[in-house]
Amino acid sequence: METKPSSRSKRGREELEVVAGNGLLDRRAFLRGGAVFAAAMTGYTLAKPAAAEPLSDDPWSKVPGAISPPYERPSRYEDKVARSLSNPNGEPRTQHARTPHHLLNGTFTPNGLHFTIVHAGTPDIDPEKHRLMIHGLVKRPLVFTLNTLARYPMVSRMTFVECGGNSAPFFSKEPIQASVQALHGLVSCAEWTGVRLSTLLEETGVDPKAKWLIAEGADAPHLSRSVPLTKAMDDAMIALYQNGERIMPGNGYPMRLILPGWEGNMNVKFLRRLQLTEAPAMTYYEARTYAPVLPGGKAYQFYFLQEVKSFVTHPSPGLTLQGPGFYEISGVAYSGNGRISKVMVSADGGQSWAQAALHEPVLSKAFTRFRMPWRWDGSPAVLQSRAWDEAGNAQPTRAQIIAVRGETTKVPPVTAFPGQHYNGITTWAVERNGEVKHVYA
Amino acid sequence: METKPSSRSKRGREELEVVAGNGLLDRRAFLRGGAVFAAAMTGYTLAKPAAAEPLSDDPWSKVPGAISPPYERPSRYEDKVARSLSNPNGEPRTQHARTPHHLLNGTFTPNGLHFTIVHAGTPDIDPEKHRLMIHGLVKRPLVFTLNTLARYPMVSRMTFVECGGNSAPFFSKEPIQASVQALHGLVSCAEWTGVRLSTLLEETGVDPKAKWLIAEGADAPHLSRSVPLTKAMDDAMIALYQNGERIMPGNGYPMRLILPGWEGNMNVKFLRRLQLTEAPAMTYYEARTYAPVLPGGKAYQFYFLQEVKSFVTHPSPGLTLQGPGFYEISGVAYSGNGRISKVMVSADGGQSWAQAALHEPVLSKAFTRFRMPWRWDGSPAVLQSRAWDEAGNAQPTRAQIIAVRGETTKVPPVTAFPGQHYNGITTWAVERNGEVKHVYA
Repeated sequence: METKPSSRSKRGREELEVVAGNGLLDRRAFLRGGAVFAAAMTGYTLAKPAAAEPLSDDPWSKVPGAISPPYERPSRYEDKVARSLSNPNGEPRTQHARTPHHLLNGTFTPNGLHFTIVHAGTPDIDPEKHRLMIHGLVKRPLVFTLNTLARYPMVSRMTFVECGGNSAPFFSKEPIQASVQALHGLVSCAEWTGVRLSTLLEETGVDPKAKWLIAEGADAPHLSRSVPLTKAMDDAMIALYQNGERIMPGNGYPMRLILPGWEGNMNVKFLRRLQLTEAPAMTYYEARTYAPVLPGGKAYQFYFLQEVKSFVTHPSPGLTLQGPGFYEISGVAYSGNGRISKVMVSADGGQSWAQAALHEPVLSKAFTRFRMPWRWDGSPAVLQSRAWDEAGNAQPTRAQIIAVRGETTKVPPVTAFPGQHYNGITTWAVERNGEVKHVYA
Repeated sequence: METKPSSRSKRGREELEVVAGNGLLDRRAFLRGGAVFAAAMTGYTLAKPAAAEPLSDDPWSKVPGAISPPYERPSRYEDKVARSLSNPNGEPRTQHARTPHHLLNGTFTPNGLHFTIVHAGTPDIDPEKHRLMIHGLVKRPLVFTLNTLARYPMVSRMTFVECGGNSAPFFSKEPIQASVQALHGLVSCAEWTGVRLSTLLEETGVDPKAKWLIAEGADAPHLSRSVPLTKAMDDAMIALYQNGERIMPGNGYPMRLILPGWEGNMNVKFLRRLQLTEAPAMTYYEARTYAPVLPGGKAYQFYFLQEVKSFVTHPSPGLTLQGPGFYEISGVAYSGNGRISKVMVSADGGQSWAQAALHEPVLSKAFTRFRMPWRWDGSPAVLQSRAWDEAGNAQPTRAQIIAVRGETTKVPPVTAFPGQHYNGITTWAVERNGEVKHVYA
């Protein structure tokens, strides 16, 4: 309708030059607002012209609606936005419930969809009867009730929790065709509120000989892990709240240990005991389950940290592109080392890269949503993201990880060995028909 | 057990001097960690000594637990953590569902417990069939589907939404004895993700004559409000996601207008239409429902902004203190003008004040959790909080608001008139037996 471009839209066009192969656009589009976007859309209008007639009423506009419930749940039309369950009948083995990252957006995970792993089901704990004991190499062994803990000074922090075995399918020789939920669904991010562990250890006093603490859960297997005391005194928390409300049952109700940025299972759920010791306990879960053997024969044990990582959630397998034009490439990045400093995105399999926009504020050891404007021309494209953290670590390629840790030798279903701590680059191939496939590149 | 204080705990004691009347302690306790807290606790140990015997197993540690569900809900022991409903049988009038702030902690509201108000129930909208039309004084009227909107560049922001009528009971002549949920439950805070409205208006183009837009919902009453175009071009958003997942039904599924910091009902839910106009529409909801008459006879209309406000959630009515000793006073503060710059807390009814610690990062137009260490000596105390925002606004006293807007002349149940936009100070009286009462001071 405009016969000549305004200076505003002209500026927009300049800013939206393609900045990397296959149509990646300048991320500053996000900083300048709509004008530049509209310019980028020339020839690719997404919306349809409105008809001249007045709006008609849909059926739901003609009847009284539903009663507000005391605790709200998503619309019935969203019933596919659910965790995928590895053991839906509760057979006597581990249960995994994975987060559907491709169906979410924003920077954290709602409580209904936070991932969980339980090794013998979720215990039904009475919070009035549950106790936390801190004992061992302390000056005054103490027992805390939930009500007692609630009187201490609290802190809140947004942090991700990731299973050490998240992304295990990437150790497979061939790329497994599955959604980002199946491939990366064992990581989530929430705001945890509770009492600093250091506050409680000042109450008990610490024997100078203490170097570790053994954290133990109240679930039937009494999952326990050894934690260096340095972490306990740094940023460890006894969490009582998850995203504002009491912790969900599968995430450790009524209290769990939070070790920001450290391997998921060390964030012991249903926490009932912290025993201070001189040495690690070499528990079942740290000596067997979470100690894969490396190609040279040594165990990959006590690695703790979840290193810098990112993956694209939109588009991803199952989200088919509807013809050429503008799309937003977005995903999550995080690092147990601190803040994400940069995310680069490629649409040509790593031949060229462009810097993505990061959602502000970028928080330490939390999900950071990255966004990249993209004009897809309809030809095959290969999408990747690569993150850097403030400590200077770059996300490695898959080949770099496999060289050190080996590939799994079994066919799917993939085992957990050597499938621990994969933080390499993920690659999605976009085909001409808009379908998205998992590939190695 | 320590026979002489270490230099560390000595420093702690110094820092924890009482900084205001009735036992308010220096907020730097939160910055320095546990040591100073332990010092403050001398003589007030909260936890009990642990027995020497080994831990016994509780019943839930002896049996397999529950199966992880696809969508998790809180523990059955938390069933009282629910929204309170003004119209639980869905009679043909407005329904309010209020957030239980006294049972939550952290900086935002989980989706199950976000407040909602619906005037004719919650419509059951099919997202595939729902449309958003932008028309009126635009160059190209356009219709957007949910899938179309999902292709535009998205943004996420944490922001509170507050009903203009939140805190209406404070206009009552006598303080109404009720929980913080009943008094302040019509405000919540969430991360909203969606498309900037300015992005869509660049697609439609805007006629220079346009100064307002009329936003209309798809619920049966078609609630509509007039919004100045300046706000639309500033930070308005068409939100598709709430705390990471699709918007809850009662909060406007599948899309709502978000006007950060502006009166709740203007954040039109179930959004189906934006009509650009030269003048406001003087709709039912802006000309009658949300336009209370001031003492001088003029209508209090088109006020838009939710001004700087705070209230203490812990302790508050219903949360009885369990004897003298340490407690944390905490609550939420927010302002439609931007960031909270300072929160002051008093334990002696405003005679003396001390500065509270603020949860970082402090975000614009979002909840900020404040925390204040307090050593209660068991005598009556009167708790207040007062917030300032970065624009220099201070939260007023109740008397200042009543002087301008008048008191309600009806006895409880309180009507909504003149009960709009109360942002004055809230006062809780702590009695000797630990009970907390609502008082005016």
